[in-house]
Amino acid sequence: MNPDNSRRLLIIGGRGALGSALIDHFKSEGYFVASVDRGQNSKSHFPISLEEVASATLEQQVHLVNEKLEKLAPLKFHGILCVAGGWAGGNVKDSNFLANVDLMWKQNMHSSLLAACIATNHLAEGGVLVLTGAYLALTPTPGMIAYGLAKAGVHHLVKSLASEESGLPEGTKIFGILPITLDTPNNRKCMPGADTGTWTPLNFIASLLQTWIENDPATPLSGSLVSLLTHDGNTTTQIN
Amino acid sequence: MNPDNSRRLLIIGGRGALGSALIDHFKSEGYFVASVDRGQNSKSHFPISLEEVASATLEQQVHLVNEKLEKLAPLKFHGILCVAGGWAGGNVKDSNFLANVDLMWKQNMHSSLLAACIATNHLAEGGVLVLTGAYLALTPTPGMIAYGLAKAGVHHLVKSLASEESGLPEGTKIFGILPITLDTPNNRKCMPGADTGTWTPLNFIASLLQTWIENDPATPLSGSLVSLLTHDGNTTTQIN
Repeated sequence: MNPDNSRRLLIIGGRGALGSALIDHFKSEGYFVASVDRGQNSKSHFPISLEEVASATLEQQVHLVNEKLEKLAPLKFHGILCVAGGWAGGNVKDSNFLANVDLMWKQNMHSSLLAACIATNHLAEGGVLVLTGAYLALTPTPGMIAYGLAKAGVHHLVKSLASEESGLPEGTKIFGILPITLDTPNNRKCMPGADTGTWTPLNFIASLLQTWIENDPATPLSGSLVSLLTHDGNTTTQIN
Repeated sequence: MNPDNSRRLLIIGGRGALGSALIDHFKSEGYFVASVDRGQNSKSHFPISLEEVASATLEQQVHLVNEKLEKLAPLKFHGILCVAGGWAGGNVKDSNFLANVDLMWKQNMHSSLLAACIATNHLAEGGVLVLTGAYLALTPTPGMIAYGLAKAGVHHLVKSLASEESGLPEGTKIFGILPITLDTPNNRKCMPGADTGTWTPLNFIASLLQTWIENDPATPLSGSLVSLLTHDGNTTTQIN
């Protein structure tokens, strides 16, 4: 596919359930889709694997991705969507608490920082940057303390990046999406018998993000934290 | 000094300007004061140095402090006050951005997590745990992104720890103090000519924390983020 004449997207976390669904959706809509993840997603038009730098610092990962994307220069992306992340439960007495803090920090914050740093070089002016927060982290999370504090950091990052002089390209629109539970094959496997009518379908998110990238008049203000609330199979958004 | 018959405090960050002022204040009020920092504060009754584990993981630091505090067992602390922390400016394009994220995470969040983990073992029931947030992080911080997101994480940690089933001892009261600029010798040296009438005096904070530890009726609710706002040399508190 020729990226010159298409809308171009970069998905961070392209091998996850949501990332993979986004690649499928946007390819079918005629987008050129690059992806970054720990392993290559061969469905993507331009897969970048971090596998070779698995033990690398975040700084080295940013350097590697920047370098690979130079092959597309001077083309830039219309959207960079970070949907990498992870969850861990446990309170401060949990024997894995500090290990989980480190894991949540890396899975949720490092991926967001990677997206933000890549955006400074490779997002087009007026482009869209999406990070993934968590609805539950809008309030205290005593049963999943590590997860909550990392996601609260991501929410603050969204607000800071959306402010003047944050260092992102002129006119960047930045959003946080705040899901609760996504309707993924893995969640269906891990939580049999759960009420999947409260889980957010991946195609709802794909369609929503497309409206933002294509400047739909209903696009929220830059800096919005957009909760995804699903009841009885119907998903609505709530802006924070 | 005999710790048995005194109120007992543990100061995390005892060598910093605020930590050192707290040691002086509470000693003069008859408290037994232990301290933790990268180097020993010899003023403290029970100094614990992390110097020997400077390259250690947070988990190893927690283990070391827990082990040293076993010498005081079965005595527990009436208060654990974490006033370690640091500041760094810069937006996402700053060449030191990712290094500063790591530094802010360690200086502000690791010290808070150390305090919380130590509290699970060594804080008395109904005791006070204080972490240090930042007034500026209540709103976006595009000019100091790393600092803001780390402090936002600390604020969320305060809220989670104050909730039921967080893992802290029964009846723990937890507060975040949210200063803007502290009136320290170093700040006076680094910012000559600044309006020091907007800087918060260290003795105001010491007196305020004492009222909380001694269960003054004006003590805010557990989970409060308490901003310290100083104008014309007068400091007031604002609860968030």
